[in-house]
Amino acid sequence: MVPRPKVLIAGAGFAGLWAVQRLQNAPVDVILVDRNNYHTFLPLLYQVAAAELGPTDIAYPIRSVLRKSRNVTFRMGSLTQVDPATRTAWIDADPVEYDHLILAMGATTHFFGVPGAAEHAFPLRTMDEAVPLRHHVLGRFEAAAAETDPVLRRRMLTFTIVGAGPTGVEFSGALAELVHGPLGRDYPDLDLSEVRIVLLEAMDRVLSEMPEELSDYARSRLERRLVEVRLGTPVSRVQPHAVTLEGGDQIATDTVVWTGGVKGAIGPEAWGLPMGPSGRVRVTSHLEVEGMPGLWCAGDLAYLEEEGEALPGVAPVALQQGTTAARNILRTIRNEPLQPFRYRDPGMLAVIGRNAAVARVGGRNLRGFPAWVLWLVVHVAKLIGFRNRMLVLVNWAWNYLFFDRAVRLILPYARSVPVPPDIVGSRAPER
Amino acid sequence: MVPRPKVLIAGAGFAGLWAVQRLQNAPVDVILVDRNNYHTFLPLLYQVAAAELGPTDIAYPIRSVLRKSRNVTFRMGSLTQVDPATRTAWIDADPVEYDHLILAMGATTHFFGVPGAAEHAFPLRTMDEAVPLRHHVLGRFEAAAAETDPVLRRRMLTFTIVGAGPTGVEFSGALAELVHGPLGRDYPDLDLSEVRIVLLEAMDRVLSEMPEELSDYARSRLERRLVEVRLGTPVSRVQPHAVTLEGGDQIATDTVVWTGGVKGAIGPEAWGLPMGPSGRVRVTSHLEVEGMPGLWCAGDLAYLEEEGEALPGVAPVALQQGTTAARNILRTIRNEPLQPFRYRDPGMLAVIGRNAAVARVGGRNLRGFPAWVLWLVVHVAKLIGFRNRMLVLVNWAWNYLFFDRAVRLILPYARSVPVPPDIVGSRAPER
Repeated sequence: MVPRPKVLIAGAGFAGLWAVQRLQNAPVDVILVDRNNYHTFLPLLYQVAAAELGPTDIAYPIRSVLRKSRNVTFRMGSLTQVDPATRTAWIDADPVEYDHLILAMGATTHFFGVPGAAEHAFPLRTMDEAVPLRHHVLGRFEAAAAETDPVLRRRMLTFTIVGAGPTGVEFSGALAELVHGPLGRDYPDLDLSEVRIVLLEAMDRVLSEMPEELSDYARSRLERRLVEVRLGTPVSRVQPHAVTLEGGDQIATDTVVWTGGVKGAIGPEAWGLPMGPSGRVRVTSHLEVEGMPGLWCAGDLAYLEEEGEALPGVAPVALQQGTTAARNILRTIRNEPLQPFRYRDPGMLAVIGRNAAVARVGGRNLRGFPAWVLWLVVHVAKLIGFRNRMLVLVNWAWNYLFFDRAVRLILPYARSVPVPPDIVGSRAPER
Repeated sequence: MVPRPKVLIAGAGFAGLWAVQRLQNAPVDVILVDRNNYHTFLPLLYQVAAAELGPTDIAYPIRSVLRKSRNVTFRMGSLTQVDPATRTAWIDADPVEYDHLILAMGATTHFFGVPGAAEHAFPLRTMDEAVPLRHHVLGRFEAAAAETDPVLRRRMLTFTIVGAGPTGVEFSGALAELVHGPLGRDYPDLDLSEVRIVLLEAMDRVLSEMPEELSDYARSRLERRLVEVRLGTPVSRVQPHAVTLEGGDQIATDTVVWTGGVKGAIGPEAWGLPMGPSGRVRVTSHLEVEGMPGLWCAGDLAYLEEEGEALPGVAPVALQQGTTAARNILRTIRNEPLQPFRYRDPGMLAVIGRNAAVARVGGRNLRGFPAWVLWLVVHVAKLIGFRNRMLVLVNWAWNYLFFDRAVRLILPYARSVPVPPDIVGSRAPER
C-alpha cells in the first residue's frame, strides 16, 4: 500500500480551517498545528477588548471542529522552522516530514519602528492581546474612581487608539458605547466628561479602503459618540503615560491601543522564503511559494497581487485562499493542472455601534441601521459552532435590550502557573 | 447635620454582599472593598476548574449589584492594615476612617506545612486559581497527545487530588466526567486507560462532615467513575512531577490539586486581632471581634463555636453571618441590644456527577438523582443575577443533552500587562 501524502497546515485561523475542511475525507493525512487549542473568530475580537463579548463567545475548540475528520490530527504547538529542500518542518523542537505544507499563521502587529510602541502600546490582533486590554481598560476606571488628583484621573480616563482602519474604528465605537452606557451607570461618582477617546489616523480619512462617502459617515457617527477623530496625525512616540504626535504635541494617556498596521507572522523570512512587502510571503497565483514545490501559503501571511494591487488581509481572502491551496494540493497529487486564485469579493463591513455601520456590498454603499443588521447577520452566520452562535446571540440580545455589558469582569490573567519547565512536550503559552 | 456612620466592608463574598444587602438604604454610608471587581459564586468554582462552566458564568460585576444602592460605594483594592484603636483601615496605601468595619475576606488554602505543596500544588479557592488549573489540565492532554514516551505520558495523564471534602470530591467527579466524556472524543488517539484520577484523603472516609451512609455512597460512585479513592493516606511531600505519601509511596503526576485545608485570610494576625484555630478571627456571639468595638467579622474568616463545635466555612454560614453583623451594626447605632448569631442549617449537598449527588437535608439523607436535582435547583437559584442564571442554564442544558464541555479552551492567562507601576491608585492584580 502506498502511504498517503502528508499535509501539514500551520495555523487554525480562517485559511487553515478552510483548508482542513477541504481536505477532510480526502486521500491525505492532515496535521493541523496551532499554538492555541481554539480558533478565534477575529472579526469580533475588538468586542472582547471592549467587554461586549466574553472570550469564549468567539473562541471554539479546534478538536471539536475536527471530531468528524478521521484523517486530521491536531498538534498544539508552534512552527519554529521549515526546510523546504528536505520538506521538513519543526513543531517546537520536533521535526515532522511533510509532502505539502500550508503556511497560514496569519499576521501580527506592525509598529513601524515607532519608539516605545512595541513596549507600551496594546496591540489587538489575538485573544491574548484582547483580554489584557479589556482588563486594563476596566482597571483604569477602577483606578480613576479611587483617584483624587484630577490630572492623574484624566490621564487614566484618556484612551488613545492609533489607526482608523476597521479595527480602530470598531474598537473606538464600542469603547464609546461601553463608557457612556454601562460604565456610566457603574461609576455614578465619576464625571464622564473627563473621559476622552482619541482616534489618531495618519491618513486623511477613516476606513480608507471604503468609499469616501462611507468614511465621512463613519467619522461623523464616531464624533457624535464623542470620539475625537484626528486625521492626518501620525504618532512619533509612545511612552508609559503619553503619546507624542508628529509635530510634538503630547496626549497624556495610560492607554494606547495600536491598530496602526500589520505584517506577516514571524518565521518565513528567517527560513529563507521569498518575501513581499510587510513581511508577507510571495506566492504564485496558485498560492505556492515561489520556487518551492510542496510549500503553500494562504491568508494574511500570503502576498499576492490582483490587477496590480495586493489582496487585503481580510477574512474572506483568507478562507477562499485556504480552500484554493487545499484544492491545488489535491490537484498536484492527482497530477492535474493547478487553478489560479481569484478573489470573489463579498464586500466590506465596519460597525461603529448600535444601529450604525457602513457596508460596501455589490457595488452599493449601505449605512446606518440596514448596514448594521447586515453586519450582525453576516457575523453571526459565520461564527463557527452552533453553541457559540447561541451564546453570542444571548449576549447581543441582552446588550441590545438592556444596553448593558454583562461581561465587564476583570478576570485573572497574570498569574504564572507552575508548569515544570523540563516536561518534554510541555505546551506552556509562549508569552 | 450629624454625619452618617461609615461602615467599611472588606470582601465581596457571601458574607460581605449579604451585609451590604442589609445595609443598603439604611442611614449609613457603606464602602465595599474587594481585590476583584466581581463576586465569585464559590460553590461552583470547581466546575470552572473542570471546564464545565466558563469563568463569567459564576462571576458577577460588583458594581452592577450595587447600582440601586445609593449609599454604597465600591473600591477595588485590598485591606492591608487595620488599627482598631483609631478605627482606621488601609485600602492598599490609603488610610480610611470607619465607624464600623466588617472583616469578610474569607479563607485561603492551608497547606499544613507539607513540603513543596505551596510551590507545586494547585489550590482551588479563587477564580485566579481555578482558571490556571483548568488550562493546566487541558494542557496536559495536549502535551500527552504529542508525547511518545509512555512513562512521561502516564505522568502527564495522572491527576492527583489531595483532600476528599466537598471540593475534592466534586472536582474529582467532574474531572472524571470531563475525561471519559468530551476529552475522550477530542483525543481519539489517546489511550484513556492511561488516565488516572487519584483522590487522596488522610481520614478514613470521604465527605467526613456527612453521615457515613452518604460518604460510602459518594465513594462508590466515584470509584464507578474510575476515580481511585485512597483513604487514610496523608501526603508528606509534593514535587514538580510527583507526590509522596506518608510511608514513602510515590505517585508520578504532573498535577496535584490541593483541597486539603483552609485557614483564614492573611492579615488579621499581623494586625493584633484575637485569633482562634486555623488563622480565623475569634468573635463574640454578636460577631464582634473580642474587645474591639466597631470591628466585626463574618464568614469563613470568623471563628465561632456553637454547642462546642466550630461553625463550618460554608456559604450558608457566611451569608447568615453577614446579615447578622450588619443588623448588629444598625442596632449599635440605634443603641439597641445586640442579637447573638444562631446558625439555621439548611443542610449539606455535594455532587459527584451527572445524576449523582448526596444531600443531608432536614434530618434526611438523599442520594442519586433526587439529590442531584436538589443540588441543581439550589445552586441555580442562589446564583446572583438573572443573566448569569440564564447562561449557566444554557451551559448546563448543553452539557446535559450532549454530554459535552463546550468551554474547554486554553485561554490566555499568563501574559503580563504594561500597567505602569508608578500610577497612583493602580489596581494591578496582586499575583
